[in-house]
Amino acid sequence: MAVTLAIKELRAASFSPFGTVIETAGHPALSINEGNAVRFDRLADIDVQDTEGKPAISIFQARPWPAPIEIKMLERHPLGSQAFFPLTTTPFLVVVADIEMKKVLAFKTNGKQGVSFHRNTWHHPLLALEDGQEFLIVDRVGPGENCEEKPLDPTYVLGDFTI
Amino acid sequence: MAVTLAIKELRAASFSPFGTVIETAGHPALSINEGNAVRFDRLADIDVQDTEGKPAISIFQARPWPAPIEIKMLERHPLGSQAFFPLTTTPFLVVVADIEMKKVLAFKTNGKQGVSFHRNTWHHPLLALEDGQEFLIVDRVGPGENCEEKPLDPTYVLGDFTI
Repeated sequence: MAVTLAIKELRAASFSPFGTVIETAGHPALSINEGNAVRFDRLADIDVQDTEGKPAISIFQARPWPAPIEIKMLERHPLGSQAFFPLTTTPFLVVVADIEMKKVLAFKTNGKQGVSFHRNTWHHPLLALEDGQEFLIVDRVGPGENCEEKPLDPTYVLGDFTI
Repeated sequence: MAVTLAIKELRAASFSPFGTVIETAGHPALSINEGNAVRFDRLADIDVQDTEGKPAISIFQARPWPAPIEIKMLERHPLGSQAFFPLTTTPFLVVVADIEMKKVLAFKTNGKQGVSFHRNTWHHPLLALEDGQEFLIVDRVGPGENCEEKPLDPTYVLGDFTI
């Protein structure tokens, strides 16, 4: 029997055990380039643990999972962080869990937020809300096993949300 | 006396001595997430040379430089690569040079391209073409001197371009 998961607004503070919210809000704007740009510096660090791997930039093109969205499994990456930043302003959903997978949380971004999952944070694969939604990904590439998957028991269905 | 610099379309092959064009075009789409996404994998590697620095994600908000855009100086980062990916589909301009700064080249992106400058590539600071244009940046943060600037002689003005 699936448990319904309430969806909360994504906020840096409540997300901090699981990762970093990548957003300009709440961060200082540093003037650079003769005043022709501002830099919101170091919004998320990129963590690659091993010397065989290295961080790289990839792009995902995603579509919404079939409704109702069932959260049946989570995955985690033991060798590095994984960051997602949307290339459109459509929100997306983020589902994470504590290390024992007992406490599962669902968040909706505000369209101007990305996330970086800490190394080893249990999370659901990308939950886009728009067909063809694109994301820039920054994560570890290289040899070795960097994806662990685990089924959830109980499973969850996502509660109401609007885009 | 400033020399006029013709602006070319950005292409991976001609840009390769200076860096990587980050784009899905020409790259295989790998199906992931139960078919709900495709991954364009490892479009650009992130290069951080020293152990004191680490790669991080930042955001720039930029505005167009005053017209006519004069290219008076270039900069380079000896300790790591620097990647820019636009968060809107407005093109931007990229100016790079060879190591002796003798050959200066200007490119316009097609709105679906980012760039990653190789470590030590001479380049002009970000040339946005839209007021408030946002970019995701992936580069080295940390102690030490990672920005070298040098004036150009002769200087350049950018030739015609349309957004």
